Amino acid sequence: MAKNFLCLCGKILGKIVEKIKVGILGATGMVGQYLVSLLAKHQWFELTDLVASSKNVGKKYCDVIQHKWILSDGLPDIVKNIRIKSTTDRLTSKLLFSSLDSSIAGDVEEHYAEQGHLICSNAKNHRLRNDVPLIIPEINPEHLSLIKKQHYKGAIITNPNCSTIGLALALAPIHFKFEIRKVIVMTMQAISGAGIDGVSAMQIIDNIIPYISGEEEKIEAETVKVLAKMTNSGLEYPNMKISAQCNRVPVRNGHLESVYIELAKKPNLDEIIKCWKEFNPLKDYQLLSAPNPPIKYFYNNYRPQPNRDRNLGKGMTVSIGHLKKSNVLDYSFIVLSHNVIRGAAGAAVLNGELLVKKAIIEN
Amino acid sequence: MAKNFLCLCGKILGKIVEKIKVGILGATGMVGQYLVSLLAKHQWFELTDLVASSKNVGKKYCDVIQHKWILSDGLPDIVKNIRIKSTTDRLTSKLLFSSLDSSIAGDVEEHYAEQGHLICSNAKNHRLRNDVPLIIPEINPEHLSLIKKQHYKGAIITNPNCSTIGLALALAPIHFKFEIRKVIVMTMQAISGAGIDGVSAMQIIDNIIPYISGEEEKIEAETVKVLAKMTNSGLEYPNMKISAQCNRVPVRNGHLESVYIELAKKPNLDEIIKCWKEFNPLKDYQLLSAPNPPIKYFYNNYRPQPNRDRNLGKGMTVSIGHLKKSNVLDYSFIVLSHNVIRGAAGAAVLNGELLVKKAIIEN
Amino acid sequence: MAKNFLCLCGKILGKIVEKIKVGILGATGMVGQYLVSLLAKHQWFELTDLVASSKNVGKKYCDVIQHKWILSDGLPDIVKNIRIKSTTDRLTSKLLFSSLDSSIAGDVEEHYAEQGHLICSNAKNHRLRNDVPLIIPEINPEHLSLIKKQHYKGAIITNPNCSTIGLALALAPIHFKFEIRKVIVMTMQAISGAGIDGVSAMQIIDNIIPYISGEEEKIEAETVKVLAKMTNSGLEYPNMKISAQCNRVPVRNGHLESVYIELAKKPNLDEIIKCWKEFNPLKDYQLLSAPNPPIKYFYNNYRPQPNRDRNLGKGMTVSIGHLKKSNVLDYSFIVLSHNVIRGAAGAAVLNGELLVKKAIIEN
Amino acid sequence: MAKNFLCLCGKILGKIVEKIKVGILGATGMVGQYLVSLLAKHQWFELTDLVASSKNVGKKYCDVIQHKWILSDGLPDIVKNIRIKSTTDRLTSKLLFSSLDSSIAGDVEEHYAEQGHLICSNAKNHRLRNDVPLIIPEINPEHLSLIKKQHYKGAIITNPNCSTIGLALALAPIHFKFEIRKVIVMTMQAISGAGIDGVSAMQIIDNIIPYISGEEEKIEAETVKVLAKMTNSGLEYPNMKISAQCNRVPVRNGHLESVYIELAKKPNLDEIIKCWKEFNPLKDYQLLSAPNPPIKYFYNNYRPQPNRDRNLGKGMTVSIGHLKKSNVLDYSFIVLSHNVIRGAAGAAVLNGELLVKKAIIEN
Repeated sequence: MAKNFLCLCGKILGKIVEKIKVGILGATGMVGQYLVSLLAKHQWFELTDLVASSKNVGKKYCDVIQHKWILSDGLPDIVKNIRIKSTTDRLTSKLLFSSLDSSIAGDVEEHYAEQGHLICSNAKNHRLRNDVPLIIPEINPEHLSLIKKQHYKGAIITNPNCSTIGLALALAPIHFKFEIRKVIVMTMQAISGAGIDGVSAMQIIDNIIPYISGEEEKIEAETVKVLAKMTNSGLEYPNMKISAQCNRVPVRNGHLESVYIELAKKPNLDEIIKCWKEFNPLKDYQLLSAPNPPIKYFYNNYRPQPNRDRNLGKGMTVSIGHLKKSNVLDYSFIVLSHNVIRGAAGAAVLNGELLVKKAIIEN
Repeated sequence: MAKNFLCLCGKILGKIVEKIKVGILGATGMVGQYLVSLLAKHQWFELTDLVASSKNVGKKYCDVIQHKWILSDGLPDIVKNIRIKSTTDRLTSKLLFSSLDSSIAGDVEEHYAEQGHLICSNAKNHRLRNDVPLIIPEINPEHLSLIKKQHYKGAIITNPNCSTIGLALALAPIHFKFEIRKVIVMTMQAISGAGIDGVSAMQIIDNIIPYISGEEEKIEAETVKVLAKMTNSGLEYPNMKISAQCNRVPVRNGHLESVYIELAKKPNLDEIIKCWKEFNPLKDYQLLSAPNPPIKYFYNNYRPQPNRDRNLGKGMTVSIGHLKKSNVLDYSFIVLSHNVIRGAAGAAVLNGELLVKKAIIEN
Repeated sequence: MAKNFLCLCGKILGKIVEKIKVGILGATGMVGQYLVSLLAKHQWFELTDLVASSKNVGKKYCDVIQHKWILSDGLPDIVKNIRIKSTTDRLTSKLLFSSLDSSIAGDVEEHYAEQGHLICSNAKNHRLRNDVPLIIPEINPEHLSLIKKQHYKGAIITNPNCSTIGLALALAPIHFKFEIRKVIVMTMQAISGAGIDGVSAMQIIDNIIPYISGEEEKIEAETVKVLAKMTNSGLEYPNMKISAQCNRVPVRNGHLESVYIELAKKPNLDEIIKCWKEFNPLKDYQLLSAPNPPIKYFYNNYRPQPNRDRNLGKGMTVSIGHLKKSNVLDYSFIVLSHNVIRGAAGAAVLNGELLVKKAIIEN
Repeated sequence: MAKNFLCLCGKILGKIVEKIKVGILGATGMVGQYLVSLLAKHQWFELTDLVASSKNVGKKYCDVIQHKWILSDGLPDIVKNIRIKSTTDRLTSKLLFSSLDSSIAGDVEEHYAEQGHLICSNAKNHRLRNDVPLIIPEINPEHLSLIKKQHYKGAIITNPNCSTIGLALALAPIHFKFEIRKVIVMTMQAISGAGIDGVSAMQIIDNIIPYISGEEEKIEAETVKVLAKMTNSGLEYPNMKISAQCNRVPVRNGHLESVYIELAKKPNLDEIIKCWKEFNPLKDYQLLSAPNPPIKYFYNNYRPQPNRDRNLGKGMTVSIGHLKKSNVLDYSFIVLSHNVIRGAAGAAVLNGELLVKKAIIEN
C-alpha cells in the first residue's frame, strides 16, 4: 500500500500541487449524482472517470443524466462531456468513489482493487469484513491500517450506512469518555435514502412505512465496528448492545433518529453536552469536507428538524437536540444527519480526503 | 351515583327503549366534530346539546361550522339546526362528552358534574386525580368505581391522551400475563393530534418536529394509571417504568409508535402474539363502538401503516406489527391507532357506552 | 350483438335473478384493484375471472397481491382464492372489465372480443376508433349502438381517460343547452393516476410536474367524441375547440381541473348552475354505481377540494365550484372527480351496468 | 424627491463609498425574514432599523425571532442585537423596505413617506394608486417618475403581488414585441405565499385549495399596470384582458402558473422563445439582485418544477417551459418563480437597488 500512498503523495507535497484524478463507480444513481456534484468542484480532485451500467457506456454523462439529475444546483459543466465507462473498463484514476448497487458492488470493487485502485465505497458489501476499514474520519481514522491485511494491489475502504453515521457520530464522543453499554435507536428516514425511485409517492404521502429491509441489522452491526478499538491483533469491539427499529417517513432528505443510551459511568446532562460541543478531532487535519465542529447541539427542544437543519455545514454537520434523563435507560436524545451527504456521498469524499492526508503525513 | 345510573337505566331496560339525550362540550374543534359525527348516528344516543365558545352562542351549528367542518362524510342533518349553548347554560342531557380545551375544561367539567351530569372527558385536566377514573373499557372498566369518591352530584370520567391509548392497549394483554417492567416508546404522531390549526403547513411539509410539549409526560403518567389494579384502598400502580420521546410527522391521521419492552416473565414471540390475538375482554359487553377484536396483529413487517390501516374497525382497532426480540430490552414492536377516533372522540364515546352498560347491569 | 345482450338478459328479467359472471383483465394494477373491490361486492356481478401478467398465472390472487394491495378496506374474501389466468386463457365470464396496460390492451381486448366477450375497457387503445363507443352513461348512452359496426363476435366499449371524465360531465349539461364553442382546461392530477409506482416520492413531494405525456392530447380528442351526437351516419362531432395543459400534483387521489369556456348562447351564472343541479339523466335507469345526482355544485369558493370531496357519492360524484364570469372566455369554474373511481374503475363498472340495463330494456 | 435621491447619491458617487442605512417595516413575518436575510449581507445596504408589532418593541431581534425563524441558513449575526422599533418610532434609515400586513401598511407607509423616507413596499395597499409606481425593474423602471405626483416629503414605490411578478416577467418580452391581447392564467401557489402560519397542515397535505381570496383580482389589475406605458399624461394601459384562477398546493416555495395568451401579431414558437432568451434589459444596470439573464427557458417539457428550479439565480430567475400552440388562444406555457424571493422580498430589494442606481444616474 505504501506505494499507492506515495503515488498520491507525489502529487501533493504538503499542499495540493496537482489535482488528483478520481473516478466514480455508479455515477448515475442518487448517491452517484451527489458524488459528481461534490467532486466536480473539489479543490484536490479532478473528476475523470464515470462508470455506470453497460447500457450507457460510451454516452456523454449529460445525455444520460439530463432527465434524471435531481440536485437543484444543476449539472456541473465539467462533467457534461465525460463519456460513461463500463465496470470492466480500465480507469486512469487511482482513487475511486463507489456508490454501486450492492448487487454488483462486491465483485466490481474487488476487481478494481486488484488492479491497484484505492476505493472509497459507500456500498454495504465489504463493510463488515475483518480486513476492510469502516471509516468515519472523526471517529476511527486509525482503522485505515486494516488495509494492510488486504491482498489487493490497491485497497478498499468503506463508510457506514446512512443511518449509522449520524448515530455513531452522536455516540462516539460520549462513548469515548463514559462508555456506552446499551443503545436503542428508532429512525425516521428520508425517502432519498432509498434512491431516486426507491419509494413511490403512493407508498409514502400521508403515510409512514415502519420497516426498511436490512437496515436494522446494518445499524446494529456497523455501529460497534466503527466504535471498535484498533489493536495490534485487530479490532476490539466495545461491550455495547444496540437495537434498532427503522421507519421511512415523507421527508425528502435528512434522517432523524431517536436514541436511548445506558452508560457505564454516569455523567450529568451538561457533561454529555460538553462532550458533543468539544468533539472536534479533525480540527488540525484540514480535510476540506469536514465540518468544524462536526456536531451542533440545539438547546431548543423543537430542533433539530430535517427541513431546517439538514444542510448545516454543507450537509456534513450532525445535529443533536432534546437530551434528557430517562427512567428506563440513562438518557435519550435526537440526532439528525443529511443522509445523502453526511450519510453517503459526503462520507465517501471525506474518506478520500483522509486517505490523501494520511498519505501526505506518512510519507 | 346510583341514582344517576338508574336514571339512565330507566330508559334502557336491557335494550335501548328510548334514546339517551347527550351533549358535547366543545363541539366545534377537531375532536368535537368527530364526536358530532359519531354521536349523530349513534343507536343509543340522541345528540341534543352542543356547547361551544361564547362568541357562537345562539347560532345554528351548521352556520358556525360550515367552513370549518373537516370530516369528509359531511355534516349530519340531525345537528344542522341545533343552536350552540354556552358553558354556563343549563343542559338537558344527562350524559356529556367533553372535548373542551384544557384552558377551560377543568372548571367547566366540574361545574356540570356538580349539577349532576355524567361527563366523559377527553381533556387532560382531571385525568390524574385519585378520584377520577382514566378508562379504556377493554383494560380497566372496574376503575369506574373511583367515581364513588367524587363529591359531585354527577361524575367525571376520562379517557387517556391519544398517544397513550394505542400504547396501553398494546401493553395491557402482555402485562396482564407476563408483567411488563420497562417500556420505551418513540412516537410518530399525526398532525390532527394538534387540532385543526395546530400545525402549520410550513412547519411540517418535508419535515418532522421532534418534540410535542407535555406529551411525553402524559404518556408516562397515564399509561401506568390505566394499567393500575383497582383495590379496596384505591389504585395500585404497576411496578413499571415508562419513557417516551414524541415526534410530529407529516401524516394526517394515525399515531405510529415504536415500542421496546422488558418483562418480568419471559414469553416467546408466539406467546406474545397470542396474547394480542386473544385479547377481547369486551366480547360479551356489546358496546357498539368496541371493535371485535380490538387488536389486529400483522405478520407483514411493512404493516401497520397509517394511510392503510388507521381506519380498521371504523378507526377503533389498534394495529400491531414487527414484533421482534431485542438485545437491549426484551422485545420491540410497532403500534398504530387512529388518534382522533380510538385516541379521542371514539374513546370518549366508548366510555359513554360503558357507563350505560354498567348502569344496566348494576341496576 | 343482440344475442350477447339476450344472453345477459336471460339471467336478469327485470331484476337480477342470477348474478352475471364477470372477469377483470389486468387485475393487479391500481385500477385492477379498484375493479376487484367494486366488483367483489357488486349486487349484479359475480367476480369469476382474474387475468394478470404471465408470471403470476396459476397463483392465488391473495398470494400475488398481498404486498401490493393499496385499498384501505382490505382484500375482499371472495377473491382471495381465485387463481390468476393468463391473457390467452379461455374465460367463463361473458362480461370483462379491462384495465390492461396500453402496451398489450389493444391485442388482448380484440382477442377476447373475437371470442364473444363484451369488454368494458379503461385502456386508451380503442377509444378513438370510429366503431368503438366512448361512453359516459350520463352523457352518451346512445353511442353504444356503434358496436354494431364492430366485426367481433363480442364487442368492445370504452370509457374516457380519468381527466376527461370529470371535464366532460361538467361540460355536457351546459353544452346540451347553450353550446360550448371553446374550452381551456388546466389540470392538477393526483399521483394515483400514474399507477401504483408511476410517480416516485422524490419526484413529487414538495413539487409539481408540469407535464403528463400524452394526457393533453387525450383530453382534447376524447372530450369531443364523448359529446358527439349519434346520427344514422355515425358520430357528429361538436363545433368545439379544446386545449389542455396537465400537471401532476402531490395529492393521492382526485383530479382537480380549472376550466374556462366560451358559449354560443349566453346564459347567466344561475342558469349554468341550474344546468348542473338538474342534470340527472340516469335517474330512472337504476344503475347501481350511478350517483344521484351525478353533479354537486358548491357555493363555497374554497370547494371542491380533493381531500374533502373526492369520495362524494362513493367516488362517483363530480364536484364543481367557483363558477365566475371571465373577461377572456365567458366563464371559469373548478371541477373535481375521483380519478380512480369515477375516472377509471367506477367508470368501467358503470358502463358494464349500462350494458346490462340496455340488454334488459331492448330485449 | 430630487433631494432624497441626492441624499442617497451623496453616499455613493459611482460606486458605493459608504453603505446606505436601510430599515424593514414588518421584520418578523415570512417576507420580513427574507428581507432580513437579503439585506443583512447586502453590499450596498446596512440593515439598521427593524420595525415590528408593538408587543415586541424594545426586544432584541434574536429573542423575538428565535423560534419563528424559518430560513435554513440561520439568523445573520449582524441583526441579532438590533432592538425592535415600533411603527411610530423615528427611524434613522432613509430607505425602508415594507412587508407590513395590509391591515396596517396603508397608514404606516404613508406616515413614514410623509417624514421623508423612501419606501419600497411589498404590501398591496398603495399598489393601484395613480401616483404610486408598481415596479418590476426589468419591465417598467420608467414608472418610477410617478412618484413626482406624490405629495410626501419621501415617496412610496411598490412591487406587485407574488403571483403577478412571474406572470408579468413572462408576458413582458412577448408583449413588447407582439402585443398580447388576452391572457388566461391558472396558478398553483406555494404555501409560503400565505405566510408562516397562513395555511394549516390539515388544510393542505394531500389536498388543494382551489381559491385564494383577493388573489385573482390582484393578478388581473396589477399585470396591466405593470405593462402600462409611461406617457406625459400618466400610465397608458395596454389593450389586454386578463383572467386568473388561483389554487393553493402542497408545495413549500415556488408559484407555478399555467398561462394561455392571444397576440395581436402572430409569431411562431421560436420567435417567442427568442424573446424570452434575449430579454435582459438590466444587463448594463449592475443591480446586485438582478439575475442575468432574468428568464430561463427549458426545452424539456417536464420543467420548470418548483422543487428543482425555484432557486435558480438565487431565487430571482423566472423559469418558463412547455410553450405550445393552442387551438383556443394562440399559445400556452408554464411559468415558475420563487414567490418569497422574486415574488416579494427580492422584488422589494431589487426596487431599492433601482432607486439607488437611478439616483446615481440622475444626479
